[in-house]
Amino acid sequence: MDANRISYHESVRKVYERLKEDEMSNVWDRYTAQGLGSNPDTRCKFCMGGVRCDFCSNGPCRADAASDKRGVCGISADGMAMRMMLLRNVMGASTYQYHCEETIRTLKEAAAGSGPFTIRDSEKLKAFSARLGLDGDVPALCAFLQEDFHRRSHEESRIVELLAPEDRKKVWRELGIFPGGIYGEMVLSTGSSLTNVDGYYVTLAKKALRLGVAMAYQSQIVLESLQDVLFGIPRPHKVQVDLGVLDPDYVNILPNGHEPFLGFTLIETARRPDLQEAARAAGAKGIRVIANIETGQEMIQRWEMDEVFAGFTGNWIMQEAVLATGAVDVFVADMNCSLPMDPLYAEKYCFSLVPVSELVAFEGETIRENYNPGTADAQAERLIRIGIENFPKRKRSVAPLTGLPIGSAIAGFSPESILEALGGSLDPLLNVIKDGTIRGVCGLVSCTTLRDHGQDVHTIAIAEELIKRDILVLSMGCGCAALQVAGLASPEAKERAGPGLKGLCEALSIPPVLSFGTCTDTGRCADLIGAMAAALDVPVTALPVAAAAPEYMEQKATIDAIFALAFGLYTYVNPIPTVTGAPNLVKLLTEDLKGITGGILSVEPDPVKAVDGISAHIESKRRELGI
Amino acid sequence: MDANRISYHESVRKVYERLKEDEMSNVWDRYTAQGLGSNPDTRCKFCMGGVRCDFCSNGPCRADAASDKRGVCGISADGMAMRMMLLRNVMGASTYQYHCEETIRTLKEAAAGSGPFTIRDSEKLKAFSARLGLDGDVPALCAFLQEDFHRRSHEESRIVELLAPEDRKKVWRELGIFPGGIYGEMVLSTGSSLTNVDGYYVTLAKKALRLGVAMAYQSQIVLESLQDVLFGIPRPHKVQVDLGVLDPDYVNILPNGHEPFLGFTLIETARRPDLQEAARAAGAKGIRVIANIETGQEMIQRWEMDEVFAGFTGNWIMQEAVLATGAVDVFVADMNCSLPMDPLYAEKYCFSLVPVSELVAFEGETIRENYNPGTADAQAERLIRIGIENFPKRKRSVAPLTGLPIGSAIAGFSPESILEALGGSLDPLLNVIKDGTIRGVCGLVSCTTLRDHGQDVHTIAIAEELIKRDILVLSMGCGCAALQVAGLASPEAKERAGPGLKGLCEALSIPPVLSFGTCTDTGRCADLIGAMAAALDVPVTALPVAAAAPEYMEQKATIDAIFALAFGLYTYVNPIPTVTGAPNLVKLLTEDLKGITGGILSVEPDPVKAVDGISAHIESKRRELGI
Repeated sequence: MDANRISYHESVRKVYERLKEDEMSNVWDRYTAQGLGSNPDTRCKFCMGGVRCDFCSNGPCRADAASDKRGVCGISADGMAMRMMLLRNVMGASTYQYHCEETIRTLKEAAAGSGPFTIRDSEKLKAFSARLGLDGDVPALCAFLQEDFHRRSHEESRIVELLAPEDRKKVWRELGIFPGGIYGEMVLSTGSSLTNVDGYYVTLAKKALRLGVAMAYQSQIVLESLQDVLFGIPRPHKVQVDLGVLDPDYVNILPNGHEPFLGFTLIETARRPDLQEAARAAGAKGIRVIANIETGQEMIQRWEMDEVFAGFTGNWIMQEAVLATGAVDVFVADMNCSLPMDPLYAEKYCFSLVPVSELVAFEGETIRENYNPGTADAQAERLIRIGIENFPKRKRSVAPLTGLPIGSAIAGFSPESILEALGGSLDPLLNVIKDGTIRGVCGLVSCTTLRDHGQDVHTIAIAEELIKRDILVLSMGCGCAALQVAGLASPEAKERAGPGLKGLCEALSIPPVLSFGTCTDTGRCADLIGAMAAALDVPVTALPVAAAAPEYMEQKATIDAIFALAFGLYTYVNPIPTVTGAPNLVKLLTEDLKGITGGILSVEPDPVKAVDGISAHIESKRRELGI
Repeated sequence: MDANRISYHESVRKVYERLKEDEMSNVWDRYTAQGLGSNPDTRCKFCMGGVRCDFCSNGPCRADAASDKRGVCGISADGMAMRMMLLRNVMGASTYQYHCEETIRTLKEAAAGSGPFTIRDSEKLKAFSARLGLDGDVPALCAFLQEDFHRRSHEESRIVELLAPEDRKKVWRELGIFPGGIYGEMVLSTGSSLTNVDGYYVTLAKKALRLGVAMAYQSQIVLESLQDVLFGIPRPHKVQVDLGVLDPDYVNILPNGHEPFLGFTLIETARRPDLQEAARAAGAKGIRVIANIETGQEMIQRWEMDEVFAGFTGNWIMQEAVLATGAVDVFVADMNCSLPMDPLYAEKYCFSLVPVSELVAFEGETIRENYNPGTADAQAERLIRIGIENFPKRKRSVAPLTGLPIGSAIAGFSPESILEALGGSLDPLLNVIKDGTIRGVCGLVSCTTLRDHGQDVHTIAIAEELIKRDILVLSMGCGCAALQVAGLASPEAKERAGPGLKGLCEALSIPPVLSFGTCTDTGRCADLIGAMAAALDVPVTALPVAAAAPEYMEQKATIDAIFALAFGLYTYVNPIPTVTGAPNLVKLLTEDLKGITGGILSVEPDPVKAVDGISAHIESKRRELGI
C-alpha cells in the first residue's frame, strides 16, 4: 500500500510492515477492503450521500433528491440525512455526558474522602462554582449541576444561562435553540428521530444545534473544569511522544480512552516502591504508565512526565500499531476508542485487555474492572499486578519492535495557563491580533481517519498551512496528538510558521500550535473565544477566529462541529460528511446558517484551498472590525 | 396494484382508488418504488441484513459474516446489526418516556388545580401509589418517579424493584440486566453505540434488554397508570370504527399520535354549546372529535362514544386514506405517527395540519400548538375554531368520499376491567386455562406494515388462527386497531373462534380478541401476566402464554419485543427484522436466549406455521405445568 495512505508518521508505517508480516487484520487493510472497485474511498452512493434509512420495517429505503424519491413514510433525502446526523450527535453527546457524570461521581467521592482522589485545586473549585453563583461546596455544586442536566427540553438550562455569551443566548432564544437539560435534549432528539415524528431537515437540524449547546456547556465545560479541580489545571511542560516511548523492558500499562480517572490513579499507584520492586522481581526494569489517545491527552496536559509516567503514543488509528510493538502488558480500555479487534491483538502480542467502563465491551472478554472512584486505588493495583504477571509471558513469546522514534511536544495550554503566559490578561493576545502580528486563531479539534488520506496526513497539512499564514492554532482531540507526534506542538516548529507567528513564538517561548487538550476541551475553547469577544466588546461572530476538524471520524466530532456552528463559527470539516445526497441540507449548513447562527460549514478536500477559506473568513472579520 | 397488497380493509382499498385518481404520492406507491427489480419487497442485501454502518467517516462499511469481512474499525456483522437495533430501541424508549414525562407534567397540573385536567380516579392513584410504597400524594409520587428515572445505569431502579415479578428480578440480576433509571440506561445504550466503544453483539443485546425492562416499568406502566388516574380506567363498551365514522357534514377534528391529552380536552371542549353553535353557524351539523391511531386508542379505551366523540378510524398506514376522504378539518398531530407527507395532503384536501408536540414537525408548517397542560382547554378551543373556520373552505373545495363502511368493536379491557369481568379474581380465567377450555393467552402488540403484505393482512391472519385454536388474544397497538376494524374485537367474532374460546365468549359476553389498548399497554400486559404467574405460584416463563407482533413497523415495537424477550416470553415477530446478515445474533435471539432469560424470538412469514409455533410453545408449557 502507498505509504502515504498508511500514516504521516514513520513509526506507524514501520509497524504496519510488521502487521503485514504477521498477517494481522488491521485498520488500513480493512479500509481498503471496503472500497467498491479499485478506489478504497468509493462506497455505496446512497450510504455515502446519507440518503438511506433502515429504521422501520417498511424499509430499508433509499431517497433520491433529484427525482423526489422518498422513503416509504414520505421522508425526503434531506430529512433522512439530517435525522441520521442527529442520531450521531446523540451518541457523541451521550459519551461526553457519561464522562461528565463519572467526573461528578469522582468529585463527590473525593469530597467525601472516599477512595484515592482529592481536591487538588480548591481555587479552581471556587472559581468555577462562582460562575454558577455557588460558593464551592461540592455537594451543593453537584446537586445544582445534576438538577440542570435533568431539566426537560422546554425548561431552560441554568448552566447555559450562566456560562454562555450574551449575544449567543439572544440568538439561541430567537431561534428556539436555547436548550433545556442534556437528558431532556437527548430524549427530544431520539424521540424526534422515530419514524413519522419529525422528517423535516430544518427542525431536525435545530434539535441538533440545541443538543450541541447543551453538550458544550453542561457536559464539556463542567467536566473539564471539575477534572481541573481533581487533577490540576493544565500548565505548559514538555512531554515525550510517539511509539518509541514504549520500552519493552518495562511492565507497560496503557490507559486508553477518554476518561482519565484510572489513568491518573495508575500513575500514582505505579510509583509505589513495593510494586516497582515486584516488577523488577519479575525481570522488568520497572513499571511504566504510557498514555494513549484522549485519556492520555487529559493526563499529559495536566501532569509532568517522569520515570513512571513515561510517554504518550498518539491517536486512535495507530492503536493496532501500538499493540503490535510487542511492548504492551495491560491495555486499560475506558470509555471510547478501543477497537473491536483488540482481543485478537491481545492474543497475538500477549497482553491483557481490560475494559474499565460498563460501556466498553469486547468479544471473549474474561476480565473487567468497571471504574469505581471509591476503590480506584485497589483497581489500579489489580491492573498493575496483571501487568507484572504478564511481563515474563510477553517477554518469552513476543519479539518487540525496537528503534521506533521518540519525539517531544509542549502540552498543557488551558484558558488559565494561556492567561498566565500572557501576564494575567488577554490583552497581549488581542493586541497581536489587532496589530496583525498574527491574523487570527483557529481551534483545530479533530479525530483521525483513513478517508482520502493516511493517518494525520490531512490534519498536518492544514495545520502547517494555518501557521504559515500567521494563524495561531489551538489543537484539541486526536488531531492534537497528530500535531504533537508530528512535531508541530514544539517550540522548534516556529520555523514552519509565518514571520508574525514566529516572532510571537519566540517572544513568549511557545509553539505555533498550542496543545489545548482533548475534543472535550471544545467547550472551553468556546469559553475562551467568548472571553475574547467580551474583552473586545463584540459578538463572538465578529472575531477573526475559525474552527477546523480536518479529519473528523466519529460522533463526538459531529456534535462538536454542530456546536461550533451554533456558536457562530466558521467551521471547516473534512472529510465531506455523509449528507451530500441532501441538497437542501447542504445549502442550510454551508450557506443559510450564516444568516441564522452566524455559523458556516466549510467543506474542501484540498488543504491549501481549505485554509484559503479559513483565511478569507478571518481577513473579512478583521476588515469588519477595522483592524 | 394487487388489492391484497393495499389493505385488508375495503374502506382503505376504496380510498386508494381516489389517491390514484388524484395522483397523490401515497405509502403504497412509495413502498413499491423502493423495490429493487420487480419485487417490491427486495432491497439492498446489506441494508436488509442489517450489516452496514455509516456512523463514522471511515465508512460507510458493509460486513459479510460469511467471509468475516468487518467494518473498518473491526466491528463484525453481528455487532453492526445489534448496535443499530439497540439504537432503534433507544428511539422507541425515548418516545415512551417522553409520553410518560408529559403524563406526569399533566398530573402535577391537575393536582395543582391548574388547567382543565382533574384527578378522575383517586382510588387508582392510591392503588398505584401503594404499589410504590406511597400514600397517593401527587407531588411525592411524581418526585419518587422522577428520582428513579434519573438514576444512573449502575444504580438499581426502585420502580423495577417494586413492580416486577420476583423470578424475573432474580434472572435480571444474575444476567446483569437489572436496569437503573431510564435516562441512565439510554445514555448507556447510545454511549455504547459510539464507534469503538462496544462492538460485541452479546453485550449490546444485554444493554437492549436492560433498556427494555427500564422502559416497560418506568415509562409504560407508570404512564398508563397515571393516565387511568387522569382519564379513568378502561372498561368495556362499544365503539364505532373504520373510515365511515367520518361524516363530511361535521367539523371533524382528528387528534392523532400517541399522547391523548389534547384529544380528551378536545372532546370536552367540543361539547361546549357555544362552539357547537359556531359550527352550525358555519354550515356544519356540529363538531366531532374523531380518534386515530394510538392517541385514539387511548381515548376509545377510556371514554364512551357519543354525538361529539363519534368514532375511531384505524391505524397509521391508513392515514393518507383518512386524510383523502375529504372530511377532515383539523389534523392534530401529537407525538408519533404523523407522516412527513401530511402537508401535501393538507393542501390537497383542505384541512389544517397542526403539530401539538415539540417533537413533531412538518415542512412548511405555519402553525403549531405545543401541548401545555396548564392551558390545554384554551389550546383545544383554538384548534376547534381553526376547524370551524376550515369547514366552509373544505366544503367548497373538496368533494368528500361517502359510503365508506362503519364497523364496531368492544374497547376497554384493562387489568382492572378484566378482573371485574371475572368477578374480582383471576381464578375463573386460570380455571378455563387449566381445564383446557382455552389453551392459553397471546398478547398481540403490533404496528402495521406493507412489508410482504397489505395493511393488516398478516395481523388478521395470525389473530384468526390464534382464536381458532382457542387461544385468547389481548390486542394492543396498531394491531389492536387492525382487529377492531376487521371485526375481531366484536362479540360476533366468537363464530371465528374454536369451541372452547367460543363458549367462554358466550359465558362472559366478551369477544375472542380483547382490546387491551395501545403498544404502551405492553408493560401492563406483562404486569397482568406477572399477576397470573403469582396466582399460580410459578415463574412467568412457566405460563402457557406468548407475545406476537405480526406486523412490527417502528422502534416502539422493537423495544416492546426486546422487553418481551427479557420478560421471558415466546415472542413472535414479523416481518423478519433486519438482522439476518448476523448469524450469531440470530442464534442468540432465536435459540440461546431461551436458556438465558427464557425468551424465544420466533420468526416465520407463514401465518399458519407461525401460530403452529405459538401453539406448540403453549402446549409444551401446559405439559410442564401438568394441565
